[in-house]
Amino acid sequence: MHTLYSMQNSGNCYKLRLAMAQLSIPFEIHDVDILKGESRTPEFLALNPNGKVPALRLKTGQLLSESNAILFFLAEDTPLMPEGKFCRAEVLQWMFFEQYSHEPYIAVARFWLKLMKGGRELKRDMLDDWWERGYEALGVMERHLETHDFFAAGQYSIADIALYAYTHVAGDGEFDLSDFPGINAWMTRVQNQPGHVAMDWRP
Amino acid sequence: MHTLYSMQNSGNCYKLRLAMAQLSIPFEIHDVDILKGESRTPEFLALNPNGKVPALRLKTGQLLSESNAILFFLAEDTPLMPEGKFCRAEVLQWMFFEQYSHEPYIAVARFWLKLMKGGRELKRDMLDDWWERGYEALGVMERHLETHDFFAAGQYSIADIALYAYTHVAGDGEFDLSDFPGINAWMTRVQNQPGHVAMDWRP
Repeated sequence: MHTLYSMQNSGNCYKLRLAMAQLSIPFEIHDVDILKGESRTPEFLALNPNGKVPALRLKTGQLLSESNAILFFLAEDTPLMPEGKFCRAEVLQWMFFEQYSHEPYIAVARFWLKLMKGGRELKRDMLDDWWERGYEALGVMERHLETHDFFAAGQYSIADIALYAYTHVAGDGEFDLSDFPGINAWMTRVQNQPGHVAMDWRP
Repeated sequence: MHTLYSMQNSGNCYKLRLAMAQLSIPFEIHDVDILKGESRTPEFLALNPNGKVPALRLKTGQLLSESNAILFFLAEDTPLMPEGKFCRAEVLQWMFFEQYSHEPYIAVARFWLKLMKGGRELKRDMLDDWWERGYEALGVMERHLETHDFFAAGQYSIADIALYAYTHVAGDGEFDLSDFPGINAWMTRVQNQPGHVAMDWRP
């Protein structure tokens, strides 16, 4: 069975729980509390030198890190991955957008405002920049969703899972989604997919 | 023929020129000078709503953005992409590492210190953070290269191209690579690959 090194309230870790639930892939969870420094212990760094969760130890013993790379691994040859070279590249395009233009603002604002005690004071100088760039990313998503039901290849895929993970909790970083009707309708479509589980789900 | 929307001194754009040169894929360049706002014009935003280069317009008319997604598209079924599901995921793991943990510090420091006039003063408060996190990423690379010749699957691949693009010009962001013998030896191996071209190369 695969082992997921995971923090329950991390959106990057939730992506993998959601995908494995929908693909009926059995796995167990090894909890890593990054707030207690558990991703920086010598034991964890020997496992994942980049010192981050999630990481997935396959039943073969091999280790993978980076949430979206793991998503791609899990989804190959499943209904969560569109067929065809161009469609796979479109999936990756949105997953790189998520990690470069979305997560560093929307997830990071949530981390410091919601999860880290005293974070608002510590990061006061960064908040305006995170909100500005986070809203830019939400604007790119909204314009895409004006004419598309899903992000890539006209179907629900790991691109939607990657973007849903932190978008649906953007309010924790004090983003207001009420002016984004396309994003709200898309989030409902994602929640209505067979086998959908919420962020607090564990196997 | 493909059209690459590109800025010559952007490492993200160089990745694609290098890969297409090594794969003998014909393409033409449409220069976009982001310093002159050319990636934010209505015409360019109609093409790529995220307002960034590189973007690749395929000979079919379809458009792809995000440098590493385009790299993956170009490399599928070529010698630049290792075979096997786990190896592909390893390639992606390093490409997501590059976009999340490397480029935002090493490329961004270069942009503001080397390319943007007055950037040092404008971004004075950010420099220490960029250098600290950039050296962390270089440390992760160095530890990997102590026991590996390349980043993924034991062979030269698009993972190496993605990481080489901004590592080989890290000095422009005032990173000192002299204490990273593994990285220096790897850069020489990359430069010795058949068909290697330098950053100023154009088709």
